[in-house]
Amino acid sequence: MTDLENLVAVSLLPPWCWLRAAERLRAGDTAEATLQHLLAAHWRDQPDKASTLHTRAAAAIRRAHEQGIAAVAWSDARYPAALTTIIDPPPVIWVRGAIDALSAHAVAIVGSRAGSPYALAVAERIAADLAARGIVIVSGLARGVDSAAHRGALTCGTTVAVLGSGVDVLYPPEHAPLAREIEHDGAVISELVPGTPPQPWFFPLRNRIISGVSRAVVVVEAGEKSGSLITARCALEQGRDVLAVPGNVLTGRNRGAHALLRDGAKIVESADDILEELQIAVQPRARQAGSDAPAADPILACLTPGEPSDLDAIAERTGLSASRLLPRLLELELQGSVARIGGGRFVRVDSSC
Amino acid sequence: MTDLENLVAVSLLPPWCWLRAAERLRAGDTAEATLQHLLAAHWRDQPDKASTLHTRAAAAIRRAHEQGIAAVAWSDARYPAALTTIIDPPPVIWVRGAIDALSAHAVAIVGSRAGSPYALAVAERIAADLAARGIVIVSGLARGVDSAAHRGALTCGTTVAVLGSGVDVLYPPEHAPLAREIEHDGAVISELVPGTPPQPWFFPLRNRIISGVSRAVVVVEAGEKSGSLITARCALEQGRDVLAVPGNVLTGRNRGAHALLRDGAKIVESADDILEELQIAVQPRARQAGSDAPAADPILACLTPGEPSDLDAIAERTGLSASRLLPRLLELELQGSVARIGGGRFVRVDSSC
Repeated sequence: MTDLENLVAVSLLPPWCWLRAAERLRAGDTAEATLQHLLAAHWRDQPDKASTLHTRAAAAIRRAHEQGIAAVAWSDARYPAALTTIIDPPPVIWVRGAIDALSAHAVAIVGSRAGSPYALAVAERIAADLAARGIVIVSGLARGVDSAAHRGALTCGTTVAVLGSGVDVLYPPEHAPLAREIEHDGAVISELVPGTPPQPWFFPLRNRIISGVSRAVVVVEAGEKSGSLITARCALEQGRDVLAVPGNVLTGRNRGAHALLRDGAKIVESADDILEELQIAVQPRARQAGSDAPAADPILACLTPGEPSDLDAIAERTGLSASRLLPRLLELELQGSVARIGGGRFVRVDSSC
Repeated sequence: MTDLENLVAVSLLPPWCWLRAAERLRAGDTAEATLQHLLAAHWRDQPDKASTLHTRAAAAIRRAHEQGIAAVAWSDARYPAALTTIIDPPPVIWVRGAIDALSAHAVAIVGSRAGSPYALAVAERIAADLAARGIVIVSGLARGVDSAAHRGALTCGTTVAVLGSGVDVLYPPEHAPLAREIEHDGAVISELVPGTPPQPWFFPLRNRIISGVSRAVVVVEAGEKSGSLITARCALEQGRDVLAVPGNVLTGRNRGAHALLRDGAKIVESADDILEELQIAVQPRARQAGSDAPAADPILACLTPGEPSDLDAIAERTGLSASRLLPRLLELELQGSVARIGGGRFVRVDSSC
């Protein structure tokens, strides 16, 4: 049996075993000894449990391989370093896409599934601005703020989605095309064996991975009982920074985010606030194509190549007034980065950020 | 010469003299000795300055008296106690309305002159909720947030306006009717001798009085260079609490308020946050008529007697959803506090808060 098979077998045990498994692995036990210990402690009355688990683990690894899903064990050099520092790291993570996306500086952006237009615009803009500076954006592929963050990041850089199901069981199903875009330069990951359907109890567990692979968690619009507050709590337990975007106080939509601010979370108005807080030295980043990309421009960062936007939309996304935007757009037009098209709309014409 | 005449004469000297005057008065000098000292130090070459000042002071006091304006000198028992604690208290304040409004617990609410609909709604709501609990709301009678705060307070209680001109020279002029409403239970005050026209340099000076008579300053929507930030700085220098309401991060309208939060101002979502921070023990307050008023109800607090509001407006002001509002409105209707009128609108039918 390989280490990987033993660790996949551990991850087939119920979640309450994973913390114990992590403790033993950290103490230096082998994967095999860890599995044996757990079976001896809790499944003494099921002597064939080990062989069942091994059969299932081997089958899962084989199937994943056929589907192009990488199984990255705790003992694997490719396992994200940040995740090894948390108290309950997953024994194995399953990865679709570019596994090295997990070794860059990462910031999680999470928030309401029923995000307001304001929350979606903020999440998308901050994600785009951070991604343009080489930060990987981590989120949960959920509806609302999560997917806005992924989409924002995709306009200029790389993003990672952490699922509450197997990486081959996309939830919500309409995000399957988004997941495929994410995989192109980034990754879709899960600690759950491929084929595992989404279950409500997987999502809070998944949240510790979102914060665990990240340097900081940014909460954008969270009500009083938002799941994002679980991610924020995980982040604090893991020693990550927690930041929150403020918003309207009349709707109740931001009570959770404002409670975080009251408790000492840093206030975020823009990507710069996050970079300053994290003291990450970043540089404008060229695309992997290695093209001679111009420096990141906040207006370009808000435009998706090929997608026309009108002036109001650009003003809302950049926070610049029309009178400040127009001369900048003219400059970008003269540079050839933006084209003016029908209906007073603008479109980005290059593919670098 | 009376103390009052001498102090009015001091207040006719340029503003840079007032701090020196306050220092001498605090040290125990009489009003007359203080005036003589300032004249000897700075107007030695104008031997008739004293008699000119006295003539102007006596005339100002006489004219104010004829107009029903009270002149309250530093040495007067009615002078607001809170104002005596600041480093540069005005030698005299001129008061239209109820001078005892200045002896209650007071909270200042200030913000953008070009307040967004959101800022106006928040200011009005917080002012109404605090006023309903017996807190006097202090502001600057300016357009935007200031006047929204005064109007909110008037629905349920008392408010004080501090002007950057004489109390008989209303600026902006369209706020003259609002000033008359304020005077009914509250007060319109200024340190400037009646007849003084508004000048840009008076407004920053006026801001120290707004914070000086208040226990705390609440900033609602302030851009990066808002005058409200001057009031906040005065408040900090005077040992008052500074609180700020968060808002949209995309418009730039809240940069000043968010900067205050970043620097440690307390975050405000509702009147309760302010009361908690100040640890003011308050009680629902009956109107001066002494009627057997019911306890303050947050929905009633948001309805001006006689002014119909539709459900959406009430929902926005109270922050309650329509589905939560409707049963509450029905209860209030059964109690006889609210009547349902045409067009799905509601109107408050009693006059107590």
